[in-house]
Amino acid sequence: MKGPRARRGTRQERTAPQSTGPMQSFLKPVEILSDDQVESIHRASLRVLNETGIEIMSPKARAFFKAAGADVDQSNDRVRLAPELVEGSIATCPSEWIFHARNPARNVPIGGSWLTYCNATTPPYVSGPNLPRQPGSFETFKQSVQLCQALGEVHFFYGYPVEPQDLPVSSRHLDAYHTLATQTDKVWRAYAMSDMTDALVMAQIARGVDAEQFVREPSLMLNCNTNSPLRIDEAMCDGLIAMSGLGQPVVISAFTMAGAMAPVTMAGALVEQNAECLAGMMLTQLVKPGAPVVYGAFTSNVHMKSGAVALGTPEYAQAAIAGGQLARRYGVPYKSSNVNSSNAPDAQGAYESMNALWATHMGHCNIMAHGIGWLESGLTFSFEKAVIDAEMLRMMQAFLKPMDLSDEALGVEAIARVGPGGHFFGDELTLDRYETAFWEPRLSDWKPYDGWVEAGSKIASTRAGDIATQLMDGFEAPPMEPGIREELDAYVAKRKEELA
Amino acid sequence: MKGPRARRGTRQERTAPQSTGPMQSFLKPVEILSDDQVESIHRASLRVLNETGIEIMSPKARAFFKAAGADVDQSNDRVRLAPELVEGSIATCPSEWIFHARNPARNVPIGGSWLTYCNATTPPYVSGPNLPRQPGSFETFKQSVQLCQALGEVHFFYGYPVEPQDLPVSSRHLDAYHTLATQTDKVWRAYAMSDMTDALVMAQIARGVDAEQFVREPSLMLNCNTNSPLRIDEAMCDGLIAMSGLGQPVVISAFTMAGAMAPVTMAGALVEQNAECLAGMMLTQLVKPGAPVVYGAFTSNVHMKSGAVALGTPEYAQAAIAGGQLARRYGVPYKSSNVNSSNAPDAQGAYESMNALWATHMGHCNIMAHGIGWLESGLTFSFEKAVIDAEMLRMMQAFLKPMDLSDEALGVEAIARVGPGGHFFGDELTLDRYETAFWEPRLSDWKPYDGWVEAGSKIASTRAGDIATQLMDGFEAPPMEPGIREELDAYVAKRKEELA
Repeated sequence: MKGPRARRGTRQERTAPQSTGPMQSFLKPVEILSDDQVESIHRASLRVLNETGIEIMSPKARAFFKAAGADVDQSNDRVRLAPELVEGSIATCPSEWIFHARNPARNVPIGGSWLTYCNATTPPYVSGPNLPRQPGSFETFKQSVQLCQALGEVHFFYGYPVEPQDLPVSSRHLDAYHTLATQTDKVWRAYAMSDMTDALVMAQIARGVDAEQFVREPSLMLNCNTNSPLRIDEAMCDGLIAMSGLGQPVVISAFTMAGAMAPVTMAGALVEQNAECLAGMMLTQLVKPGAPVVYGAFTSNVHMKSGAVALGTPEYAQAAIAGGQLARRYGVPYKSSNVNSSNAPDAQGAYESMNALWATHMGHCNIMAHGIGWLESGLTFSFEKAVIDAEMLRMMQAFLKPMDLSDEALGVEAIARVGPGGHFFGDELTLDRYETAFWEPRLSDWKPYDGWVEAGSKIASTRAGDIATQLMDGFEAPPMEPGIREELDAYVAKRKEELA
Repeated sequence: MKGPRARRGTRQERTAPQSTGPMQSFLKPVEILSDDQVESIHRASLRVLNETGIEIMSPKARAFFKAAGADVDQSNDRVRLAPELVEGSIATCPSEWIFHARNPARNVPIGGSWLTYCNATTPPYVSGPNLPRQPGSFETFKQSVQLCQALGEVHFFYGYPVEPQDLPVSSRHLDAYHTLATQTDKVWRAYAMSDMTDALVMAQIARGVDAEQFVREPSLMLNCNTNSPLRIDEAMCDGLIAMSGLGQPVVISAFTMAGAMAPVTMAGALVEQNAECLAGMMLTQLVKPGAPVVYGAFTSNVHMKSGAVALGTPEYAQAAIAGGQLARRYGVPYKSSNVNSSNAPDAQGAYESMNALWATHMGHCNIMAHGIGWLESGLTFSFEKAVIDAEMLRMMQAFLKPMDLSDEALGVEAIARVGPGGHFFGDELTLDRYETAFWEPRLSDWKPYDGWVEAGSKIASTRAGDIATQLMDGFEAPPMEPGIREELDAYVAKRKEELA
């Protein structure tokens, strides 16, 4: 980022206190649907797949469905699925697995009660301190990758934090994957293409494993977006087939905006989301039974007066929790998202995101897509919002740490020592525990008003920009074996030549 | 508010769409403590009350405890309470009742699954659009009352939204209560004084009821703050005795900041909170069995590095949910708060508040104190934050509306009509329902970026200030019978003379 680079971090501890990896929730998921209501949505989705069917735009994918016994209408690519066929096929979806990074310390458990966080995915624009909103470039892409590598709250990369629009389309993925493979040691996900070879080869090289180990250990993820309503395009299908065939995880992501691409009711949008997810999940299992697959929800609504997508809303919160209930109905990991529709990293951006974060955490979302940096309904990656999001995620993690209820922690003795009207600052329990007793903020500023004014009256987004700058300022790429680095460089060079 | 008064509301619907009164939550409360852990806290609190005891600074209150069989040490005002005495006394606390306003449409149900919202209570400072942060005055007090009357999200007044510091202390309550009684038709709460007569008489006059009906129908509330740890001062005790004696509701509010006035552990702070609440609840029932009383929680922690109070934190969220579990253990209504420690109505203010709001809603808080306008850990009432808070509360209310899962809403027919690749804008289900399908924002701006820039690039706090100004601009005091008004005016005039 141009500009404030010169300003060096003066408070080192500020940049990464108590950053933690994935954690498990000890809370029972919140449920907004009764078991009967979950079954109603399940049955309605099966009716949709059986009666209306789904458009599968890939001949390869249609062949898989046909071989399994589905009713395939070649005239319009429509595939109709009998309920027992769907239910039988998805029975082999695994419920939990490990996503393997080139640095094993960055391995990520997916499923069960695990909560994992990712960056915002592929906004076309970017903004930051001294960086007015502008189209993403390779330069700002690399900076966003560095920030997300530096932020411990990003557990893996769910695609590009911002689209490097100045790179030629044909070879863009090579430069971007090369950056992800070398500038981070976290796992990443590829984009759906009819030919997934580049991503698969580069992920395998980066991990330094042979083909057999690569297949045994999920190391690269694919997001398979449906084209709601009820359509999956050829690149998505073929990408899925390539990935599932090699045992790599695929997230089926419906984008079901009630009132636009889905019925105007939240229940109807969930039915459509569920039908699309079931069809995608089924395809992965037809390709390779037991292939890891994730139930991806993205149901919200459009603002009917303006047609704008509305995210982080009450309806979004309901859908995020209901989506978790549906994913658990099928015993598969659940992906949801940290979203908002604000145009600035302001109070609206924060309350819409915090609303989404509580809903997704209460709904036991295993993969938090768009966890870091998303603004403007996903049109912009904001460096300030990234730090704000990271702080909110750190708060959720601290909230989900079980309370210590040991006899000592119950404090009857401490209370007796201090007695009525006293204070606990000097009590022995305080002296024992004060250093780690409470969550420590990175961004939140609790100074008294006068101290805050003295420090420049900086609102949260300004402080977040300072922190982002500090984090990137000290960035060092994680170590990589020179042989591996050379192999990656050579592969990209060769492929660029071929594509030229 | 000086300044933007001239700017008249151009979008009337913006100021009060879908404002709703108190609502019931259909969700089961979230629990972060097991039943055993709740019992551990309960038993530890009983040990504290039995072994350490609590300092009761009012001779009248000590007499009540002594008459009930408590061990009262007159040398240091210490009252020790045997477990069976506490448990026996609080058994008569009612679990649900109606709080009666002078306008019956503003009556508020307290307890059960009801969620009700209040204003921020008694910040010494105030800030707003064109109103730099400054000590509260009678002028800004009246404006804050008007805003809270205009905002449907304020269900009743939990004290003064801002302290009118320029009014003489001796008669300040008379002017303030007069404003609350005449400028709003919502119920309000009084401040604890050794003599509660003024508040009681004015509330009764405003309601226009006789003494018997006033006692039968709770119409005035008292907040009884403990002086943590384990002390209740004379004014609080005597105020409580006066109110409970007349059947008026009392909220027992512990202010247990872990590490300062409470043990450095959250469990210890909850034990102390619980002990103080139990003692206060017990006193209300000794005064009058069946008197309405509320379990008031205010447990958070101090930032040990700076000594600052930290609110809206992960620890606060845990304590807010645990507090609800404890209140339900005793079958009494639960008061919690919407809090934050930000110095500005910015992203931090919003995410800390939204964090608190989710926790308090998931914890089934029956009375949301500080719901509207609180900033700087309660030092400032912010007109902008009031509108931001109201929006977040409106989001929580919409989230808590059960989803329609009727056959029509499940949308199988609508999905069949539209089919793969279509859209739902023109579908008959959309046309039937689009006007009321989704939550409508008052503050959130979902315009595309270019449109937002064209409208002035206003961040949320700026828009919130505009909305606050619009709401106060059109303010009209609710109607009041001239006879009642005269009686109130005369009472205040007479009392001021007496106090002069």
